[in-house]
Amino acid sequence: MSHNIPLSGARLWYALMEMATIGATPRGGCNRQTLTPEDGEGRALLARWGEACGLTLTTDRLGNMALLRPGRDPSRRPVAIGSHLDTQPTGGKFDGVLGVLAGLEVMRALHEAGAETEAPILLVNWTNEEGARFSPPMMGSGAAMGLFTEAETLARTDPDGIRFGDALEAIGARGDADPAALLDIEAYFELHIEQGPVLEREGLDVGIVTHALAQRWFDVTVTGEESHGGGGMAGRRDALVGAAQLIAEIEAIALRSGSDGRGTVGRVAVHPSSRNVVPSRATFTVDFRHRDDAALDGMEAALREAAARVVAERGLGAEVSVFWTSPETPFDRTLAARLRDAATARGFRQRDMPTGIGHDAVYVARGVPSVMLFTPCEGGISHNEAEAITPAWAEAGLLVLADAVLATAGLVRA
Amino acid sequence: MSHNIPLSGARLWYALMEMATIGATPRGGCNRQTLTPEDGEGRALLARWGEACGLTLTTDRLGNMALLRPGRDPSRRPVAIGSHLDTQPTGGKFDGVLGVLAGLEVMRALHEAGAETEAPILLVNWTNEEGARFSPPMMGSGAAMGLFTEAETLARTDPDGIRFGDALEAIGARGDADPAALLDIEAYFELHIEQGPVLEREGLDVGIVTHALAQRWFDVTVTGEESHGGGGMAGRRDALVGAAQLIAEIEAIALRSGSDGRGTVGRVAVHPSSRNVVPSRATFTVDFRHRDDAALDGMEAALREAAARVVAERGLGAEVSVFWTSPETPFDRTLAARLRDAATARGFRQRDMPTGIGHDAVYVARGVPSVMLFTPCEGGISHNEAEAITPAWAEAGLLVLADAVLATAGLVRA
Repeated sequence: MSHNIPLSGARLWYALMEMATIGATPRGGCNRQTLTPEDGEGRALLARWGEACGLTLTTDRLGNMALLRPGRDPSRRPVAIGSHLDTQPTGGKFDGVLGVLAGLEVMRALHEAGAETEAPILLVNWTNEEGARFSPPMMGSGAAMGLFTEAETLARTDPDGIRFGDALEAIGARGDADPAALLDIEAYFELHIEQGPVLEREGLDVGIVTHALAQRWFDVTVTGEESHGGGGMAGRRDALVGAAQLIAEIEAIALRSGSDGRGTVGRVAVHPSSRNVVPSRATFTVDFRHRDDAALDGMEAALREAAARVVAERGLGAEVSVFWTSPETPFDRTLAARLRDAATARGFRQRDMPTGIGHDAVYVARGVPSVMLFTPCEGGISHNEAEAITPAWAEAGLLVLADAVLATAGLVRA
Repeated sequence: MSHNIPLSGARLWYALMEMATIGATPRGGCNRQTLTPEDGEGRALLARWGEACGLTLTTDRLGNMALLRPGRDPSRRPVAIGSHLDTQPTGGKFDGVLGVLAGLEVMRALHEAGAETEAPILLVNWTNEEGARFSPPMMGSGAAMGLFTEAETLARTDPDGIRFGDALEAIGARGDADPAALLDIEAYFELHIEQGPVLEREGLDVGIVTHALAQRWFDVTVTGEESHGGGGMAGRRDALVGAAQLIAEIEAIALRSGSDGRGTVGRVAVHPSSRNVVPSRATFTVDFRHRDDAALDGMEAALREAAARVVAERGLGAEVSVFWTSPETPFDRTLAARLRDAATARGFRQRDMPTGIGHDAVYVARGVPSVMLFTPCEGGISHNEAEAITPAWAEAGLLVLADAVLATAGLVRA
C-alpha cells in the first residue's frame, strides 16, 4: 500500500445493503429496473450520498449521472469509476451496484482524509445497463460513446410501448448535460461481480479482466400452419416443435464451441397461443457469445444450417435476423497492469480472465482507456435474486480498485 | 327422400357468408371469440333470423341460445340441432357456424313449407365452445349437462382477468333460463366440418361420427435457475432447453401411438423472459388425444418418463398436472344409423369415423342420445383463417342432417 486512505469495507457493505432496500424482492433480490420509480429512488440516494462527501452531480440528457471530485492539476482530465444501479426484474443486490458504491466509498474515504489527487475523480452511474426494460443493454454508456444516437435512444420503447425519453422525464432523471462529455476522461475503471463460477471455484480474490468476448444476438421466427389439436399428426406444420428443436440445438452449438462459447434463448412466444391449436408461428431470441467474431461466425453458420435443416424436414419457414452485435473488446494493458500490481501488493490471489458478459466498460473502452476488475460471486449466480458475495470479496475488490485508481489519478498525500 | 321440404344449399351458403362478415379478419377468417362484441353481434343476427321464421328464443343464464319450433304432439320432447357461433382468435368461417346455420336452414325450410313435425325442433347455439378466451372449451354445453356448476363457470376468467359472468353481462348475452333445461330433449344432432383431411382425401361427401376420442390436457412447469447469458455453459440449469426437449418428445410420443394418437403443445411461456438471462422457469400446455383412456394412460406415462429423464439429466424440476380430461364418448347407434340411411338414400358417399376433436355433442351425449355428422374441409385445415369448404359439401351435410332430424322428429306432410 502506498497510501493511508481510510477505505472501509464495512461502510461499503452498509451502503450495498441500504441500496438493496430499494426495489427489494421477497426472495432477497432487487427489482430496480431502469427508469422505474425504484430506479429514481436509487438515483436520489446516490445523489444524497455524493453530496454529503462533496461531489458535484451532473446529469446528462440520457440520465447518466456523473459525480465529480476535483483534482489539483487543471490540465488533467478525470479518472472515472463507474457501473450501474439498475437491475434485472428479478436481479440481485450486487450486479452493477457494487461498482458504483465501491466508487462512492473511494470518494468517501478521500473526503474523510481530506486527500487531494492530481487528476479529478469521477463516479458514474450509467442509465439502463441491463437492457431488461429497454433493449439493447448498456444504452447510456453506448450513447455517451457515440455508438447510438441520442435521438434513437430516446425513441426506444419498453414492452408497454413507453418511450425511453418519456420514462426519463417521468422519474425526473433527465438532465441537460451532453452525454458525449463522458468521453472526455483519462481512464475508466469498473469493478463488478464475476457473474460466473471461475474465481470462487479457483479460490481467488479478484480477476483482472483483460478483454470482453464478442456477442451476437438474433431474433428467430419459425412459421408453420395453424390446425386443430384434435386433427391427426400427419401433415402437421407445427412451428413450435421446429422451434423447440432449434432451442435444443442452440445449446449444443454453444457446448461444442469450446469454453468461450455461450448460447442462450431467453424469450419465446407462440401464435395463436391456444391450448388446442397447433402453433403457426414461434419466435425466440438467441444470445451467442465467443472469443471473437470468427468464432461467432461459426456459431451463426451452425444456427443457420440447423434452421435450414429443420425447415426442410418439417415444411416450415424460418427467419434468422441479427438483433445486436458487440465485437471482441480488449481492455487497456497499462490499467490492467496497475490492477494486477495493486492486487499483488495487497497479497490477494488473482488471475487474468475475459468477460463473457456485456458491461458499460466494454462500450467505454471504445473511446477511453478502460479496464475491469471482478470479484467472485457465490455459485456464479447472477441476474437472480439469490445473487450473493461475501463482505470480504467486496472489500478486496474495493481495495484493489482504489489503489489502481489512486495510482492513476496521482494521490497527493493527505 | 321421404319428404319435399325446400331445403336450400344456396340460402345456407348465403347465411354462412353473412355471418362471416362479423369479426371478419383480413385474411378471410373470423375472430368472433366468445362473449366479445362480435359474438354479441353474431348472436343478435341469429336471433333476428330465428324470429323471422317463427322460432321462439330462450336464453339461459350461461348465454346458451335455444330457438324452438313447436311440434304437434304435446308429449314429445324436442329434437335438437346445435353447434356454436364462437370462433378461435384466428378462426375460420365454418367451424361451429355450419352446424348452427344448417339447423337454421332446416327451420327456414319447414317454415316456408308450412310443415309440422310431431316433436318440437330446437336449434341451439352453445356459449364458448372454443375455449380460446375462457378455458375449458365447450363450457356452455358442459354446464348444461351438469359437468360444470353454474357458479364455477361464471367465475372463470380470461387472460385479462375478466370473469365469464361479467363478460356475459357486458354483451347482454345472459338470460334467465336454467341451463339444465337443455337436458330435457329427445335427441341431439350436430353437423360440423371434419377439421381433418380424411373425408376429402377419400373423396367422400359425409362422415358418420360414431364416437369421440378420449382427451387429456396437461400443464407442465419446468424449473431451473436464472443465470446470466454471458456466463459459461457448465453448470447451467436452463428450464427452457429442458422444456424444448419435452416439446419435441411430445410430438414423438403422439407419432408412435398410432393413427388415433395426437399430441399438441399450444402455449409456452418462460420466466423471466429477458434476452440475456437463462430462463429459470418454462411452462407449457399439452393436449393429448387417443381412442380411449388406456391409450392415454400410455401417452401420459411416456410424458412423465420423459420429464423425469430430462429433469435428472439437467438438474431441473418438473411438474406435470392434469388440466382437463374427456373420456372416450360413444354416440347413439340409432341416430347414427338414421344419418347413414339418409346419406344412402341421397346417394352420398360416406364412411363411419371417430372425432379427435371435442364438440358440444360430446358433452351433450353424456345426458341425451346424440350423434354428429361431418362434412369434408379443404386440406383438413381448421382453427385457421384459411379454413374452407365447398357449397356442395355444405349442402350434402344439410340434406343428410335434415333428413335424419325429420325422420326422428316425425314429419307431418306439409
